[in-house]
Amino acid sequence: MSQYKAPLRDMRFVLFDLLGAESEFQRLGFADASRELVDAVLDESARFSEEVLAPLNEVGDREGCTFDQATGDVTTPTGFKEAYSQYVDGGWTGLVASTEFGGQGLPQAVGFAQKEMIDAANLAWGNFPLLSHGATEALVHHGEDWQREVFLKPLVEGRWTGTMCLTEPHCGTDLGLLKTRAEPNDDGSYAITGTKIFITAGEHDLTENIVHLVLARLPDSPAGSKGISLFVVPKLRVGRDGSMGEPNQVRCGSIEHKMGIHGSATCVINFDGAQGYLVGQPNKGMSGMFTMMNAARLAVGLQGLGLSDRAYQNALAYARERLQMRSLSGPKFPDKPADPIIVHPDVRRMLLTCKALVEGGRAMSYHAGLQIDVAHNSPDEAQRKQADDLVGFITPIVKACLTEWGVECTYHAVQCYGGHGYIAENGVEQLARDARITTLYEGTSGIQAIDLLGRKILQLQGAGFKVMLGMVQQLCTEHADNPEVAEFIAPLQKHAAQWQQLTMEVVDKASRDPEEIGAAAYDYLMYSGYVALAYWWARSVAVSEAGSSSDGFKAGKRETAKFYFARILPRTLTHAAAIRSGSASLMTLDAEQFDA
Amino acid sequence: MSQYKAPLRDMRFVLFDLLGAESEFQRLGFADASRELVDAVLDESARFSEEVLAPLNEVGDREGCTFDQATGDVTTPTGFKEAYSQYVDGGWTGLVASTEFGGQGLPQAVGFAQKEMIDAANLAWGNFPLLSHGATEALVHHGEDWQREVFLKPLVEGRWTGTMCLTEPHCGTDLGLLKTRAEPNDDGSYAITGTKIFITAGEHDLTENIVHLVLARLPDSPAGSKGISLFVVPKLRVGRDGSMGEPNQVRCGSIEHKMGIHGSATCVINFDGAQGYLVGQPNKGMSGMFTMMNAARLAVGLQGLGLSDRAYQNALAYARERLQMRSLSGPKFPDKPADPIIVHPDVRRMLLTCKALVEGGRAMSYHAGLQIDVAHNSPDEAQRKQADDLVGFITPIVKACLTEWGVECTYHAVQCYGGHGYIAENGVEQLARDARITTLYEGTSGIQAIDLLGRKILQLQGAGFKVMLGMVQQLCTEHADNPEVAEFIAPLQKHAAQWQQLTMEVVDKASRDPEEIGAAAYDYLMYSGYVALAYWWARSVAVSEAGSSSDGFKAGKRETAKFYFARILPRTLTHAAAIRSGSASLMTLDAEQFDA
Repeated sequence: MSQYKAPLRDMRFVLFDLLGAESEFQRLGFADASRELVDAVLDESARFSEEVLAPLNEVGDREGCTFDQATGDVTTPTGFKEAYSQYVDGGWTGLVASTEFGGQGLPQAVGFAQKEMIDAANLAWGNFPLLSHGATEALVHHGEDWQREVFLKPLVEGRWTGTMCLTEPHCGTDLGLLKTRAEPNDDGSYAITGTKIFITAGEHDLTENIVHLVLARLPDSPAGSKGISLFVVPKLRVGRDGSMGEPNQVRCGSIEHKMGIHGSATCVINFDGAQGYLVGQPNKGMSGMFTMMNAARLAVGLQGLGLSDRAYQNALAYARERLQMRSLSGPKFPDKPADPIIVHPDVRRMLLTCKALVEGGRAMSYHAGLQIDVAHNSPDEAQRKQADDLVGFITPIVKACLTEWGVECTYHAVQCYGGHGYIAENGVEQLARDARITTLYEGTSGIQAIDLLGRKILQLQGAGFKVMLGMVQQLCTEHADNPEVAEFIAPLQKHAAQWQQLTMEVVDKASRDPEEIGAAAYDYLMYSGYVALAYWWARSVAVSEAGSSSDGFKAGKRETAKFYFARILPRTLTHAAAIRSGSASLMTLDAEQFDA
Repeated sequence: MSQYKAPLRDMRFVLFDLLGAESEFQRLGFADASRELVDAVLDESARFSEEVLAPLNEVGDREGCTFDQATGDVTTPTGFKEAYSQYVDGGWTGLVASTEFGGQGLPQAVGFAQKEMIDAANLAWGNFPLLSHGATEALVHHGEDWQREVFLKPLVEGRWTGTMCLTEPHCGTDLGLLKTRAEPNDDGSYAITGTKIFITAGEHDLTENIVHLVLARLPDSPAGSKGISLFVVPKLRVGRDGSMGEPNQVRCGSIEHKMGIHGSATCVINFDGAQGYLVGQPNKGMSGMFTMMNAARLAVGLQGLGLSDRAYQNALAYARERLQMRSLSGPKFPDKPADPIIVHPDVRRMLLTCKALVEGGRAMSYHAGLQIDVAHNSPDEAQRKQADDLVGFITPIVKACLTEWGVECTYHAVQCYGGHGYIAENGVEQLARDARITTLYEGTSGIQAIDLLGRKILQLQGAGFKVMLGMVQQLCTEHADNPEVAEFIAPLQKHAAQWQQLTMEVVDKASRDPEEIGAAAYDYLMYSGYVALAYWWARSVAVSEAGSSSDGFKAGKRETAKFYFARILPRTLTHAAAIRSGSASLMTLDAEQFDA
């Protein structure tokens, strides 16, 4: 079984040393979020994740959720329900929710650290409380007063959970094709009819009620995505006065058998004239959908991060224990029958790749969390706008890169174990299977790439990109004469310049041929992720060298940064070449001529 | 469920057009291997793979093998036994085995095509007959006459199967640590005692007997790998006269629960004073082990190839069917509700990556198969030596690259399916799980890399590398003025020169610091694989343009080559940078300082 120990030292380094969260939280008006309180929250979250959730990870994988065809009920794996009760009792469901609705109102940046721990400990379990967050956001921003009154408190308290009902059998990415219908009832509610698939936590036994946020079409709506509306459809009917009524016409039709996250219920949900209420304006459902989706995308990025970290921890422990072969430069532990495999350069290559992607990814994603706090709470309007632009820009990068790296790091971990990584007993193969969903749901990496290049760069004219470049420039200027980071500053500056140059080239080509957007998008996203990580590694070294961390911790940051710049950042060479190669090599072959 | 159709058109292109197998087989003395016969073998193998094996692939995954603790018996999934009987009846087990032992004596190159089909159709099933091949090779090259007499015929006929019993709980790569003991009996046989793990096809219900090739230590043997001997240990005792006797003291202790290849029995095998016979000289068992291992490594490379191809076929079919979003350059199928996703550049990027790696990998690996035939059968001694050197050089590249690409292509296939790729129903997630073993067993990719750089380049002074460079140079010279391949020749020549340069740099650095070998090995191997594939793509275009293939086939080769040179070959930039970065960024950090 794989182990998990929350990486509190690095989490604190990122939050407090790197991001200066202690003073930043105060400046943003989070009066309660003192260093002391945040430390206590992190400690307690670590304890809960390590002691309650982590031991259920293998159980969830082995048992999976079970579906009762006769009743439509879903039973979660042994222990999931008890763990959820403890989670609710601990007040965790409302950690970052507004105090107005019963939440604790802590900063998102703290919530990100908590989410990383949950996902690392037990991704499948984490999916049950996860979607409540998106549903909450949708209702906060788009719901009517009575809807907020009735639905938000139980969601925030965790007495109910939420879902996002978007996908249908014939449409996932292309929601414009969706067919679920909403017919007005006499009482102002709607009768929702249709089939939704891939509904995470769509049915379960953890809570009394489930609040579905459902995209559907009104009778007179225009075709395509401009004719989609958002509805709130509870599993048990809820009156406008909050009274709980009889079961709604909502039923789970089946659950999927999946590669991983067996403990997470992925449901077909059938709505058969179910009573629902319109959320927001008619035909403006896509706006509510994006509110839910953006929150979910960052959350999925954190899933990739959490799994990467757990995979790394286990591979590292194994590499220190497993004795196999002698170091090429002579025995390092002559008293043992062989050296631990961490002496071998190729094993170190895999471990350092994980360390670089995990710790760099943590800095990048927590920073995004903090920027959400800035965007919502800064007293300075220009700063709020800047932060919002940056969050928009960085969200697809965090989502796609941290999940692609999740696939990669779990791959390396299995590889470090050799054949022992392939058997269930050691638990790392489960991490690899679980990680595999993260580049798919809430928009594949390809969709994130189109969001980044087509929307955030082209449509929004790179507003967030400019903020990011400004951060890079500021770091380079601040440390122009700092000998401890000099070796990183020059290549970072060179890459930032090339990033700008590539962006201009792509924008220019796209103005003549829209296929260039799709042709460049994936490589542009990955290129962006690697340059962003170079920034975070340079900044991490600068901050750690100037701080009071232990020598070992500083060495870890410094050497991993050197490794990153020497061996990971050069991936940009390949991505830049691919971006510049243009669309012709992709688009010329006729669809009928792909066969071997 | 995923589909499989043997890619006979491309297989024939590679064998006959690209490699000129028809005349080459005759020149090498394979009198029976006429074009007509080979065509018939390919057709029949395709039929068997598509109709008998492929439908059992999902069954094998779902049911897995079952183990009876009380008896030590292993039961294979439904249909496996009947399929194996048909396989034996069809004479497939002896396809490439010598006629001297009842085989059909066909060329290895033909056997490679047959193996690719089996592995693509049903990897788990394919592991049962697979290991007989290594056992046969070991006995042919190292066994005594009576051992060949007694064991080879049943193995070649498929009445018995073979295994390779190398790994023990505390040693896989480092066989020098193994503890299994062999005590001499009075009758010249040995009593073998010890526990072997990860024994593929170690126990099953397909055949009456199983022939274990076991590494063990004689009582007076020196420590380490110089004290290891090879033994043949049948499940049912076999006398020197071929008489079958009572059960031997060989028992399956358990089978592993694995990420994939559930239908393949991965066994713990306990030897408890089991009767065995020495194969070859005492303490020279590693030589017999390498005979088995080299055959197995190429075979595992073919597993990666087969899975990549099947994944590609299914992703391609899905991409042509699945309607989602409009092309960025305007609707391509305005009469449909959306365009098929194959219109999208990013989907094409994934598909073309698979096509480039599969078809290039097929050329590279079948060529290796043909070189085995040349090494064994050429009338020209110098040519035999050259071919043998080349096989030695290319084996770790075929093994590691084709399996890494197997992981990659199955990844892309899942990604093309989106969320539908993650659910068991569509079958591509099984391919991804099955592929994951191939970079691990018979030596991880890291071990292949050390074999390539440490042994084939440094110890053997790059004999095979020189042959490969000669092939590249010959192609470039031949086509210096060929406008149809001009665009590929220049970059190929540039990469070949850089390959030589990098090799010299690494050899030079390694002479001062042995850690440089391990630090460069993985990236050097992958770099080599990508340049080798560039060679095969350039040659494929040259041959296809000059031949009589259909326009569509020629377009497929030409456009995929363009794609390969534009978007895959630039991966060498990253690998070259990593190779040149040296060992310092890997080796400086203290093993205790890796923690976050």
